[in-house]
Amino acid sequence: MVKTLEFRDGALHLLDQRLLPGQVTFAVARTASETAAAIRSMAVRGAPAIGCAAAYGLALAALEAARSPEPDSVFEQGVRELSDARPTAVNLRWALERLSTKRTELLRQGASHDAIARALLQEADAVTREDLEACRAIGRFGKDLVPDGRGILTHCNAGGLATAGYGTALGVVRAALAAGKSCAIYADETRPWLQGARLTAWELLQDGIPVTLLPDVAAASLLASGRIGCVVVGADRIAQNGDTANKVGTYPLALAAQAAAVPFFVAAPTSTVDLRARNGADIPIEERSADEVTHLAGTRIAAEGASVFNPAFDVTPARLIAAIVTERGIARPPYEEALSRLVAGSASTP
Amino acid sequence: MVKTLEFRDGALHLLDQRLLPGQVTFAVARTASETAAAIRSMAVRGAPAIGCAAAYGLALAALEAARSPEPDSVFEQGVRELSDARPTAVNLRWALERLSTKRTELLRQGASHDAIARALLQEADAVTREDLEACRAIGRFGKDLVPDGRGILTHCNAGGLATAGYGTALGVVRAALAAGKSCAIYADETRPWLQGARLTAWELLQDGIPVTLLPDVAAASLLASGRIGCVVVGADRIAQNGDTANKVGTYPLALAAQAAAVPFFVAAPTSTVDLRARNGADIPIEERSADEVTHLAGTRIAAEGASVFNPAFDVTPARLIAAIVTERGIARPPYEEALSRLVAGSASTP
Repeated sequence: MVKTLEFRDGALHLLDQRLLPGQVTFAVARTASETAAAIRSMAVRGAPAIGCAAAYGLALAALEAARSPEPDSVFEQGVRELSDARPTAVNLRWALERLSTKRTELLRQGASHDAIARALLQEADAVTREDLEACRAIGRFGKDLVPDGRGILTHCNAGGLATAGYGTALGVVRAALAAGKSCAIYADETRPWLQGARLTAWELLQDGIPVTLLPDVAAASLLASGRIGCVVVGADRIAQNGDTANKVGTYPLALAAQAAAVPFFVAAPTSTVDLRARNGADIPIEERSADEVTHLAGTRIAAEGASVFNPAFDVTPARLIAAIVTERGIARPPYEEALSRLVAGSASTP
Repeated sequence: MVKTLEFRDGALHLLDQRLLPGQVTFAVARTASETAAAIRSMAVRGAPAIGCAAAYGLALAALEAARSPEPDSVFEQGVRELSDARPTAVNLRWALERLSTKRTELLRQGASHDAIARALLQEADAVTREDLEACRAIGRFGKDLVPDGRGILTHCNAGGLATAGYGTALGVVRAALAAGKSCAIYADETRPWLQGARLTAWELLQDGIPVTLLPDVAAASLLASGRIGCVVVGADRIAQNGDTANKVGTYPLALAAQAAAVPFFVAAPTSTVDLRARNGADIPIEERSADEVTHLAGTRIAAEGASVFNPAFDVTPARLIAAIVTERGIARPPYEEALSRLVAGSASTP
């Protein structure tokens, strides 16, 4: 499996997800600003991967700060640019807060800006290492939820490409298959950006896992057909009550799963839980450019002159979610208490 | 408005819907076989338009039969080829049966094959003229169902391009707007063939009607936002109990409308009602080629090696449908009796 992101030679190397599966190319960010641009343009995407990229971006800001006569303002500028890159995935803010807190501590201890930069780079490495570990733990917990002998349906890409590796929803898929379960994997193509067709299908096939692709509109028929044993998706932000923001199309998929009595699971690290958001209404939903809908690979595919509604995410109400799988265990409804406990860190052993 | 189909100079001229909106080009069918190919390849699509095209195709078969030493076998070959062109839209079979019955009558009366060919061409003209009249009547009935001052959401293209003109679902839209209702029009792009983005947006804009396009996955969010007053779609086949086969994506749209308490209307001529199908399980669902999903305008957009599930239609259960608008009046649940009465021809006056 190709690495989604890697810090080496003083720069963040990002597998450019805009060009997959046609081209395996790396985008290089040498500054916080370039990292923010890579997040905004979706060269890197997926909430956990955005968190890792933001951590490295802020470490780059600390390096820039150490070379500047005004280190604090350079660092704060980095925080702002990264924070503004995309609004919905809370992992971005979570990572920035983690590194900012670390910096404040070190400043209080009288550390030099060079030492701080080195420490923040180590902290970004830790964020990334922990994300990979979290994905593997999510897989270990989640695999037991997967009915053997039936299909698994997923939406968007919550795979190795959306994380530091292994994936959240696809972590559950990989762990279930590794445990010997016999499940056909189905992936929604996920308009408009085609994360399913371009990324999920690609990364599963790279691992030798067969996958059946479908237009998002066909998921309800597939669920109604009885072929699917469970739906597993990732998350960009989970509110205190379990309402979950994820790639647009997740909510109608959850409705279709409910209509077919198929359990609907969310797989995400606790860094995706935002206890400050009481429910889905508190989660900002990004709207993206009309071009994503009207054009594909530079070619116009829609009639000229139409307006466009292009939200990047939607909110699935907690009542449609059978379980939320985290690296510290599985939350079941009602979610308030279970999520608070998991975020506070009382982990089960997967 | 450009004509969807027209018979002139001994041939059927079809506005080629594969090339819209980029090119306004006509495909020409001079034989039943060429007409069947045009239906199969979706140069012409939309259940009522397929019915009209099939009628002309069979008139062409009658012309070929009149020039052949074996008129019956030439005609029957035409019936078979046209009948096999696409399985789901019942209007195709309905039109073929109407013209075949006409031919049987005329044969019994001792008409010549030349006279039969002329009569079947007139019958195809009648099918087409009646379809246009039916669309206008559907509009007159349907406009009263549309809440004023709120959005109308539609899926696929059930417009002038899917009929002899004016449209079924878009007939309701046009009539509501003509009656002075103030409704913003929203169109699902409708993967994989993009009928919404390419055809619905194009034909509404041609008429000066503003339209907002959205990825199919965003429809549930739009409905949840409260901006939509009703959903109106067409149909490819309506079973006796009201279960409705329509373009894939209609069923999840109906689920999302139900979740948002937005009424969901089907608009279709009575030729789309199949009383021989007791419910949705009796309706054959066409699966189309993987290329429609993996390629767009000749360019590969999905990872190589994935299998594809690409059903062209799905079935919306009658319980999710608030009303079925036909040219003879509005059917409400329970649908069995209402639909049988409308098909039998007891029309209301719109």
